[in-house]
Amino acid sequence: MSELRRDPVVDRWVIITDDPTLSPAIPRAASPVPEDPFCPFCPGNEHLCPPEILANRQDGSQANDSRWKLRVIPNRSPLLVVEEDLKRLGEGIYDKVTGVGANEVIIETPVHGRRQADMDLDELENVFWAYRDRIIDLKKDSRMRSVLIYKNAGEAAGATLGHSYSLLLALPIVPRDIVDELRGAEKHYAYKERCIYCDIVRQEIQLELRIVSETGFFLAIEPFAPRVPFETWIIPKRHSSRFEEIDSKEVGDLAAIFRDVLVRLDRALNGPPYNYTLHNAPFDKAYDKIYHWHMEIIPRIGIQGGLEWGSDLYVHSTAPEDAAAFLKGLIT
Amino acid sequence: MSELRRDPVVDRWVIITDDPTLSPAIPRAASPVPEDPFCPFCPGNEHLCPPEILANRQDGSQANDSRWKLRVIPNRSPLLVVEEDLKRLGEGIYDKVTGVGANEVIIETPVHGRRQADMDLDELENVFWAYRDRIIDLKKDSRMRSVLIYKNAGEAAGATLGHSYSLLLALPIVPRDIVDELRGAEKHYAYKERCIYCDIVRQEIQLELRIVSETGFFLAIEPFAPRVPFETWIIPKRHSSRFEEIDSKEVGDLAAIFRDVLVRLDRALNGPPYNYTLHNAPFDKAYDKIYHWHMEIIPRIGIQGGLEWGSDLYVHSTAPEDAAAFLKGLIT
Repeated sequence: MSELRRDPVVDRWVIITDDPTLSPAIPRAASPVPEDPFCPFCPGNEHLCPPEILANRQDGSQANDSRWKLRVIPNRSPLLVVEEDLKRLGEGIYDKVTGVGANEVIIETPVHGRRQADMDLDELENVFWAYRDRIIDLKKDSRMRSVLIYKNAGEAAGATLGHSYSLLLALPIVPRDIVDELRGAEKHYAYKERCIYCDIVRQEIQLELRIVSETGFFLAIEPFAPRVPFETWIIPKRHSSRFEEIDSKEVGDLAAIFRDVLVRLDRALNGPPYNYTLHNAPFDKAYDKIYHWHMEIIPRIGIQGGLEWGSDLYVHSTAPEDAAAFLKGLIT
Repeated sequence: MSELRRDPVVDRWVIITDDPTLSPAIPRAASPVPEDPFCPFCPGNEHLCPPEILANRQDGSQANDSRWKLRVIPNRSPLLVVEEDLKRLGEGIYDKVTGVGANEVIIETPVHGRRQADMDLDELENVFWAYRDRIIDLKKDSRMRSVLIYKNAGEAAGATLGHSYSLLLALPIVPRDIVDELRGAEKHYAYKERCIYCDIVRQEIQLELRIVSETGFFLAIEPFAPRVPFETWIIPKRHSSRFEEIDSKEVGDLAAIFRDVLVRLDRALNGPPYNYTLHNAPFDKAYDKIYHWHMEIIPRIGIQGGLEWGSDLYVHSTAPEDAAAFLKGLIT
């Protein structure tokens, strides 16, 4: 017997069927990016990239030399640029905004081909610190309304290089998924005077059914209405609307739970391509009470058809309770 | 110089860049479904499918025999079923609904491998009449709130057979994309006392910039903020919230403009895989004034990464004005 489930924050529904043939095939192998013998992100090729914005460097090294552990650079073909003038324009009933923003690449490691699931915890901590530092810096530009940080891992997830990197976009607008989350969270707050994500955390801890992993500060769950099998969210247990307010204990904890989740997904799905996005409050202070930052990890193991594209309705046969039990039971 | 554009109805943004390398590669060949020597939708195999719900049949033929032009059958593995009891259930803060609904397959032609772009106009008219008849019938079930009709053409668009078919889902809920459209349309109506889609039609006719094709009753446009290059919408010029109220002149016109658009997309993109969805008002009469049915056609020519999955923000370098000029200029 199938069931329709609604995401508690946005109006997104999923049909969880009991027909196992409806779940997307699990990829037989990982989805590495086809190897190019030349990689612009490898140490020694710094001169081929725009100058670095931020880096973790070895003692005695200099900006843009090859002795680094992590680098943040502008995208060579930026989607948006800070040099532009911000203009919000109308065109009859339509709205447009000039391409003001920032588009950066976080090169997570000097080691080509090293996957996030195989990184040391201090490497992952450095990745999260870089996210934080870049958000704090970009927030100073009052034209920006939000920052998106996301990851494409594996070719089927949109990666174009075999060298592990994350992407950052600072935007003069707020993207639809965040707008819808804010709207849902606001409605809940107006009714209950509580943060909806705090309510999710409380209910999930109490039920235990959908927990994949837990640390002192974080919870990793399969959401109640996952778009795809094994979709996984990492949520801070204490209320916090802004990732950039994370402290050092929390970063350590986040690296640990993040790697634990990735290792479990790797084992379960044979090293799947995946995306994740950091869902963070837009810069407007008004969102502090209602919003709660989190990470959404999406293994890319199916094909999206007209149903998903045309209506944002999802279908599969993997109940999140089953996925959570499976992931939790894996020996890592 | 890149530009951010907002869809006028929902809060969806697209970044149109001027970097041509950012547009997804156009597939080198069409994306047919791998051929299985056996097809359950071919004439002669009716006994392997559930009994037909509706059919266009030759004179003297009988239900479920092989002399048909179009058939509608229940999905063999239905996502939702009418036999279920409708229960709307809470689970703490979560909502779920039992899997009540209908899931049907419209087999559009007896000819295996025949693509919609190659169909005769009367074949396509029959497809649209079947959509109408099924909506009218399913609407009688008061448990249903909406019907989705969609198409997966080509393997990369989610098709599982090489025989052309559309899919139908009658639902006890309204999917998120339609909810968001209703919300946007309602806001516009409250402010302007006009239908936002009527405003789009008026503005597009006046500007001519994004028109691909036009008939007496319909307009085919590249939308102002397309998610992917060559996304195309077909909109009735007169206000109509419900596809099922279409009359015979309009159906003839719709078949003509629909085929014209598909032929142009085929020429432009080398027979791309595609999806389309019929965006129709939910059954509640309240939506009659504010909503306006239309079809959204999405050629599937790129890979969606973390940006699209994590934020519903899209990026490409094909301005809809350029796509419209290109499609319009093709000799068909």
